[in-house]
Amino acid sequence: MFRTESEFVGWLRSRTPRGARGLRFGIGDDAAIIEGPRGRDLVLKADMSIEGVHFRRELHPPRSVGHRALARSLSDVAAMGGTPRFALISLAVSKRVAHAWIKQVYAGIFALAARFDVVVVGGDTAVVPGATLMDVIVIGEVGRGRAVFRSGAQFGDQIYVSGALGLSALGLRLLRSRTGRTADAAAARALRAHLHPQPRCALGVYLANRRLASALIDVSDGFSTDLDHLCQASGVGATIWQDRLPLPQLPAHRRLCSEDPLRLALHGGEDYELLFTVPPRRAGSVPTSFRGLPVHHIGEINRSHHLVLIGSDGKPVRLRPEGYDHFRQ
Amino acid sequence: MFRTESEFVGWLRSRTPRGARGLRFGIGDDAAIIEGPRGRDLVLKADMSIEGVHFRRELHPPRSVGHRALARSLSDVAAMGGTPRFALISLAVSKRVAHAWIKQVYAGIFALAARFDVVVVGGDTAVVPGATLMDVIVIGEVGRGRAVFRSGAQFGDQIYVSGALGLSALGLRLLRSRTGRTADAAAARALRAHLHPQPRCALGVYLANRRLASALIDVSDGFSTDLDHLCQASGVGATIWQDRLPLPQLPAHRRLCSEDPLRLALHGGEDYELLFTVPPRRAGSVPTSFRGLPVHHIGEINRSHHLVLIGSDGKPVRLRPEGYDHFRQ
Repeated sequence: MFRTESEFVGWLRSRTPRGARGLRFGIGDDAAIIEGPRGRDLVLKADMSIEGVHFRRELHPPRSVGHRALARSLSDVAAMGGTPRFALISLAVSKRVAHAWIKQVYAGIFALAARFDVVVVGGDTAVVPGATLMDVIVIGEVGRGRAVFRSGAQFGDQIYVSGALGLSALGLRLLRSRTGRTADAAAARALRAHLHPQPRCALGVYLANRRLASALIDVSDGFSTDLDHLCQASGVGATIWQDRLPLPQLPAHRRLCSEDPLRLALHGGEDYELLFTVPPRRAGSVPTSFRGLPVHHIGEINRSHHLVLIGSDGKPVRLRPEGYDHFRQ
Repeated sequence: MFRTESEFVGWLRSRTPRGARGLRFGIGDDAAIIEGPRGRDLVLKADMSIEGVHFRRELHPPRSVGHRALARSLSDVAAMGGTPRFALISLAVSKRVAHAWIKQVYAGIFALAARFDVVVVGGDTAVVPGATLMDVIVIGEVGRGRAVFRSGAQFGDQIYVSGALGLSALGLRLLRSRTGRTADAAAARALRAHLHPQPRCALGVYLANRRLASALIDVSDGFSTDLDHLCQASGVGATIWQDRLPLPQLPAHRRLCSEDPLRLALHGGEDYELLFTVPPRRAGSVPTSFRGLPVHHIGEINRSHHLVLIGSDGKPVRLRPEGYDHFRQ
């Protein structure tokens, strides 16, 4: 029995050959890497978006469903330091939905694809009796040998995260409670983060091209879980300073939502921000803002093999990965 | 409203840009083609296998489910003249299935992948309340400019198909009626064709490398429908000689199944044979058998824009595409 996704991925990885002509990296990171043309490598990633798991038709407008489905894969390419180029869309569409809904889903995909110069080149389509499911495959490119993996973090490396944490989770709660229909600016920002997340591709390319990041992952399952993935892959632990975590707009959050903002930031998921480590000698080169996107220095790699959160009172507590896990839910 | 898959694909195609650096061919053929390394192009294809549509857990053993899911994509790469190299597997697995079933599905995938030197390099996994769905993405390679499209058939080209037609459909009917449990050799062959189809990659590569085929498609939705796809893409019609169609083991078929063998051969689907056209001046170079696989000369391209079947009595009848169409079923 697989108790967690990591166990399942480990089992898969143990059963696949590592060496093959043109293969740089297979199972076990945000995306696979194979040899590409003109001195570049190709980044390959497939990400599913499933009705009832990743979206709900009664909550998510169809354009957002399409946008989010593509954003997931773009974010994984960003998390390797790659530039997305092409996409395949496999759509198993419920016979219950109208074709107008399908067209709006694709409108969301095409609008985001156009913004990132990504061309949809194929896929598959089927009509199914049950829930709608989309699998979005993105092919990106990265300079040969420049892809950044989860596994490169070392003791003493400094930890950074872009943007804000917990904003998408707050947006989801506002959607559910229909608070989002107000004209509140803070609510609108949270809803936008949830419905139309922006993959951080430019920052990923910057980190890879300058060889700044020793390890890189995107925050999709939840900060605690993705930090755990990075630390497990690197064989290290991490110390996070709670006061440095980018919890957005705290007063607004407390007004809009009764849940603990720290909890949403740590475990909420779907932020699609980049979480990365930088060797101490390069830490001075990390910008505090990249093209308007804040970059926060939030902690450092320790030797403990655990995640530790240093509270506002200076006391350390163990941080457990409590983000999303398909095999555990 | 989309009445057919072709209408839907045409709509998608009209909404995607054609020109992009490194893009050779996007939506509208068996697979997409992008620039690859070392003087080669890459072939990209995603194919879904859905419980209740492409397989049934009570009929198909899990190893066959995995084998067939990968075979579908391999066959599409073969239909471009490509050699498959890498695969991504996205699996949305029903919470109702045991993990032992999942492992057997992967065993079927890995066994077929090993036979074709294909390495599984990634994918995505989710647990879903409803039916199990797999999306198999295959990345293949083909000599630069050597990919064979559906659209190259011209008036006078001769039409060929490999192997046998209708055998997989017969196997499915035997599975359903449980006749397959007999020791009958003909039944075993039909069951094998259905449960463990063999993608014709070597033949596809042969046709592409020798530039023999002017147009090429695989027979997955049904001979009549796939021939129609090829003719529509090429802007031509086709004349098929009924007596030349490779209907396998007719006496056994009549003993095993009450359905018309010609009907199964014309519209049955899932044969995963290659259907191709060859200019008349090259027709003499087409082998009647390729590495033990029979190659049948079954007709020729006409100017009519229709499919015509010449019966055993010499009389022509209109052949309509009656294979599988997700939007029409």
